[in-house]
Amino acid sequence: MNTRQDDAITRTTATNERWVLAARPQGMVRHSNFRLEHAPLPELLEGEFLVKTQYISLDPAMRGWMNEGKTYIRGVGLGEPMRAFAAGEVVRSRHPNFPVGAFVSGLLGVQRYAVSNGNGVHLVDTALAPATAVALQTSLGALGIPGMTAYFGLQERGQPKNGETVLVSAAAGAVGSLVGQIAKIRGCRAVGIAGGAEKCAMLVQDFGFDAALDYKAGNLAEQLRQACPNGVDVYFDNVGGEILDIALTNLARGARVVICGAISQYNAEVPQGPKNYLKIVTARGIMNGIIVFDYEDRYDEAKRDIAAWLREGRLRTRDHIVTGFERFPEALLMLFSGENVGKLLLRV
Amino acid sequence: MNTRQDDAITRTTATNERWVLAARPQGMVRHSNFRLEHAPLPELLEGEFLVKTQYISLDPAMRGWMNEGKTYIRGVGLGEPMRAFAAGEVVRSRHPNFPVGAFVSGLLGVQRYAVSNGNGVHLVDTALAPATAVALQTSLGALGIPGMTAYFGLQERGQPKNGETVLVSAAAGAVGSLVGQIAKIRGCRAVGIAGGAEKCAMLVQDFGFDAALDYKAGNLAEQLRQACPNGVDVYFDNVGGEILDIALTNLARGARVVICGAISQYNAEVPQGPKNYLKIVTARGIMNGIIVFDYEDRYDEAKRDIAAWLREGRLRTRDHIVTGFERFPEALLMLFSGENVGKLLLRV
Repeated sequence: MNTRQDDAITRTTATNERWVLAARPQGMVRHSNFRLEHAPLPELLEGEFLVKTQYISLDPAMRGWMNEGKTYIRGVGLGEPMRAFAAGEVVRSRHPNFPVGAFVSGLLGVQRYAVSNGNGVHLVDTALAPATAVALQTSLGALGIPGMTAYFGLQERGQPKNGETVLVSAAAGAVGSLVGQIAKIRGCRAVGIAGGAEKCAMLVQDFGFDAALDYKAGNLAEQLRQACPNGVDVYFDNVGGEILDIALTNLARGARVVICGAISQYNAEVPQGPKNYLKIVTARGIMNGIIVFDYEDRYDEAKRDIAAWLREGRLRTRDHIVTGFERFPEALLMLFSGENVGKLLLRV
Repeated sequence: MNTRQDDAITRTTATNERWVLAARPQGMVRHSNFRLEHAPLPELLEGEFLVKTQYISLDPAMRGWMNEGKTYIRGVGLGEPMRAFAAGEVVRSRHPNFPVGAFVSGLLGVQRYAVSNGNGVHLVDTALAPATAVALQTSLGALGIPGMTAYFGLQERGQPKNGETVLVSAAAGAVGSLVGQIAKIRGCRAVGIAGGAEKCAMLVQDFGFDAALDYKAGNLAEQLRQACPNGVDVYFDNVGGEILDIALTNLARGARVVICGAISQYNAEVPQGPKNYLKIVTARGIMNGIIVFDYEDRYDEAKRDIAAWLREGRLRTRDHIVTGFERFPEALLMLFSGENVGKLLLRV
């Protein structure tokens, strides 16, 4: 084992590289909000292990973590490594449950090497996937936070019933594509909103949505009325802004609006509230939200279901992989311009 | 009886007077949106009766009824009498349950005389009040739609629990003053938002609120934090706009935001959405609304409770009475400038 662990490290450099938060963004995130830093690899204490990251997850929530102060989690401190979910291999270990050669996934940050004591990190079962790389990618997608968010957000907060219509925005993204597919598994009509003909075709052809609405094609309100003639029973919102406002115009009676994110607003200096919020009242609906960490003690249940659906081919995923650790800021920005199709990952 | 009914009519004119919707408002309601019309008193058909209105209720919801199209109820048609709750005396009758001399309350419109077949109109028990005038006023306030709205909106939609903090805006208004008092009856801490020192003093001294916040005094967010150090468990919103946004900054975990109205926005050409709506997500809260008509089959239950509370002195009301049928538009506008203190009524 010793030989292998030394190999793994000497194949790259013996120092760590990490993207730290250099400045808090004012409005849109910029490259200059981050700084690439070199640091020595620390000695491990008893109970710690060192992970060589292979994939870093790029998630909309990261924009919120860059702000000062606490929302559901404290903001990243200036000069600290940017917080991120990542997956990789244990290359040194003083922890009995995370031996060298094990693959792990969790909040490891935007760095080539991460020291962990196991908190917020779990083992990845590579036997479940055709290749280790696929297992790691899935651990950050359908079996990771996006999967948990879609599973609990739709089912627990949206309470979809058989035969109802579920609408989801950013439907070609990591969470949205899963929400639509889980809606189908639950016997609902799934309608997705995405930008551009390519993404919309993918929703229907690859992910099995009943209909896809292209917000870039104009007249989204009319597209929505045609695709959801009986109104929307569950609206799962990832974007906020104009799209949320349009969705609110076509709620069915008793609709549940689940706010998961607001990617169109995260970079706004003055965010735009849903001016049609009174439609929730006239529809006798409710608006709530999903904070996935609240369901942490039920992740295993979700993973069992999702793994089964993946195996059975009832759930499909698509990853959008950007290669090169040095491209982290550029990759993160793709999220906000909507350039990614599927789960956006950085291959280190 | 014949003599009396003829007297009642000949004491005024033999023709009807009514305020009709002359033009739909663009933005703020204006006097010119209404037109005073004279019309002959129609002959009654079998099953109809004629009410001479004594009090006309002025309610924020009337602004919505002036718009075209249907929300939870169809808009008033151009040239039709303005829809309003009103109370008065039956002066002619061909209906067995509504004899001449009976007092009634319901959707009678802004007119001196209203023909009704009993739909949406109920008898007022004048024995419950010290004077007929008080009974009629109360039938439009605490025992009318404002009372039902406060009772079901707070209790059913807000689900306040003993010891929780209930915040209500427009707290010196008809609904708000009842919400705060019912919150107290239910063992909650009641905090009201109102405009000006006079209204705020009234909330605490007359209505028994634990604290009152004066939005005209500035720094409402700081006032709110001081008055609700553990956050707001139930926010009952009558106003929308900036005040809603500030309330959202101080929600307790699991908060319920009950949207009853948005009087600050009804006259806006482009209404302002709550830009802090994501605070509902981080607070693990929900936003819902109250449409009082959904609880119509339970009004009797509410009236029993409210009548008892009034009798026991646990619930107090205050009416703001404008006298003169011809002053209807002017009185209605007082609602939107916040000039009224308590339930606004027009004495015909």
